[in-house]
Amino acid sequence: MREVAIIGLGIHKWGEHWDRSLSDMFIDVALKAMADAEIDKIDSMCVGCMTSGLFVGQEHIAVQLADYLGIKHLPATRVETACASGALAFRTGLAEVMSGLSDIVLVGGVEKMTDVSVEDATFALSTAADQDYEGYHGITFPALCAMMARSHMNRYGSTSEQLASVAVKNHFNGALNPNAQYQSQITIENVMNSTIIADPLHMLDCSPITDGAAAVIICSMETARKISKKPIVKVTGWGHATDTLALHNREDFTTLKSTELAAQQAFKIAGIGPRDIDVAEIHDGFSIMEVIATEAIGFFEKGQGGFAAEQGRTALNGELPVNTSGGLKSRGHPAGATGVAQIVEIGYQLRGDAGKRQVQNARIGLTQNIGGIGGSSLIHIMEAV
Amino acid sequence: MREVAIIGLGIHKWGEHWDRSLSDMFIDVALKAMADAEIDKIDSMCVGCMTSGLFVGQEHIAVQLADYLGIKHLPATRVETACASGALAFRTGLAEVMSGLSDIVLVGGVEKMTDVSVEDATFALSTAADQDYEGYHGITFPALCAMMARSHMNRYGSTSEQLASVAVKNHFNGALNPNAQYQSQITIENVMNSTIIADPLHMLDCSPITDGAAAVIICSMETARKISKKPIVKVTGWGHATDTLALHNREDFTTLKSTELAAQQAFKIAGIGPRDIDVAEIHDGFSIMEVIATEAIGFFEKGQGGFAAEQGRTALNGELPVNTSGGLKSRGHPAGATGVAQIVEIGYQLRGDAGKRQVQNARIGLTQNIGGIGGSSLIHIMEAV
Repeated sequence: MREVAIIGLGIHKWGEHWDRSLSDMFIDVALKAMADAEIDKIDSMCVGCMTSGLFVGQEHIAVQLADYLGIKHLPATRVETACASGALAFRTGLAEVMSGLSDIVLVGGVEKMTDVSVEDATFALSTAADQDYEGYHGITFPALCAMMARSHMNRYGSTSEQLASVAVKNHFNGALNPNAQYQSQITIENVMNSTIIADPLHMLDCSPITDGAAAVIICSMETARKISKKPIVKVTGWGHATDTLALHNREDFTTLKSTELAAQQAFKIAGIGPRDIDVAEIHDGFSIMEVIATEAIGFFEKGQGGFAAEQGRTALNGELPVNTSGGLKSRGHPAGATGVAQIVEIGYQLRGDAGKRQVQNARIGLTQNIGGIGGSSLIHIMEAV
Repeated sequence: MREVAIIGLGIHKWGEHWDRSLSDMFIDVALKAMADAEIDKIDSMCVGCMTSGLFVGQEHIAVQLADYLGIKHLPATRVETACASGALAFRTGLAEVMSGLSDIVLVGGVEKMTDVSVEDATFALSTAADQDYEGYHGITFPALCAMMARSHMNRYGSTSEQLASVAVKNHFNGALNPNAQYQSQITIENVMNSTIIADPLHMLDCSPITDGAAAVIICSMETARKISKKPIVKVTGWGHATDTLALHNREDFTTLKSTELAAQQAFKIAGIGPRDIDVAEIHDGFSIMEVIATEAIGFFEKGQGGFAAEQGRTALNGELPVNTSGGLKSRGHPAGATGVAQIVEIGYQLRGDAGKRQVQNARIGLTQNIGGIGGSSLIHIMEAV
């Protein structure tokens, strides 16, 4: 199995881009990542996209993107696992390089969510839940996450204010990220006074609908050492696990079993533990999900994630900065792009290129990306070399 | 790069299955493939599915299938490249095994196409074409393939009767395949007298809408040699290439450049040439596409594919039997499942398990699967060991 490095990063300002198509955004970040890596040749491409069929009426999407990118006949693969499609594209790209099928791979993620009505977008997102047992009854993602939040509160005494503190932290960080959808700070009071979407979750506990794309260039370590002029980021751990698609089939609503298992795999491969992580990007589609994820990964004891956030332990100047990019809450959440953007952010942090949100001496970073309410989870660990 | 073997095959009777869901069909073939391999443990799963979002309103589909399969927390990846999603799942599975990320992988393909109206199915399939430049103008796949057929006729003198002979041959073979959607022979006259769908293509030049699934178990050669009790089929060649998504951007309407390139890659890796192939499964979504593919792969000279079919050179008793399964035309074409079913058929042929349609002394087989009108092409070569 060949070692893999990240040598190029590309992202753009996320938001509601009425004037840009899915392919416009993707080509933008693909070219940025190639320019960042200072390469003009790639062997293949892996793209994560949740549902271009329902959002923009286009499947065969990796072929369209390779075509518009102008690299003739490029092998191009699209993968999907709902909101974790970006991280799955990264894993698929890793396998391409590790196996030797490709040496240099463009890994991208993209979603164009604002071309449909809010009702149609809500339906498109609901297809990540079990349509036979959940969607049929009209379930939405805020409702599923609200059930997890309520269970967590009941068992561990987590509070709405603790959840709000996650959103406040991520907006603080997002305000330092020029590519974030929202660049405004908010307060606990703002969150608590915002509309209840699904009790106990307020509007400001929820990530937005976003148009966006992100891309990275990966290659074998051998090639990276030859061609990279920037600090090389090495991929040292990976984990992938699934869970029941429907929430009601799980033994425990207060954790993410797929994240626990993926994290265990990744830490074992990397030969490190949660205490070794300097900076992490966590899937805060809803504030409660960041709380639960930080526990499932092992950063904090079960039930302590909300307290840790409230105490500032995951703040930019805390012991473990989480979501320095602003996370899904503030950077935005174009479903298939998020997992790749998380890797872009860790790449910037480990290279020392994170600007005003730079974590000092960040050497080891972790990303956690989930599909739906954790039906799928992917963890990646990266180290500066 | 580790060598990969196919050790389990699973398929069911394809058709219009009003009483079976997408997951019902998939679980059926997954269990059959595992039973065929005599294993009860897999490390991961790769699933090809073109558009479960538009056909059944469910994304996150690999997770649902892993969940319903009852293998807790199984890493599961869904890939998509329109009608070649099945072959792409196979390639993604190869990378998993070749890299060492997994040792035993379930590769499946599935599509449930009859839960929507014919109009909605036509739209869903059209999302494999370029929506910005083709779909917008109301293009359909029969129309695109008809343009390719007309160009081929104009340049090479191919005839409607030659195209019809492809459909007649594939129905003859399908009648010998108990899992084919159509098990009835047809005549040249039947094809010529059937309704014109898009001139010069008749209804019987076109593959149908189908519900179906197929699965194979792959693993490292090392593991195969230890655990397989059946003849082992080794994967010896692979190729993957794309082309412009829109037909009008291509230099030549009479060939499939992506298939040419993928075939060249695969032959080079396998260290053989077109003359070495004993049996092939070719993507005959429309009769003209089999003709063009047999030329693009190098079985026949450019322009000779129609003449070859008419002369019986690709018949079951010909020099190169093509689509012994019945092909897309007669076995049926559930988009994401087709590429995996092609590999199942070659697996049966190389093991000597193809029953009434067995090709004598079949030792080397090839599959060719395309997305759309060849925006993507994948070729795989397998050998009996």
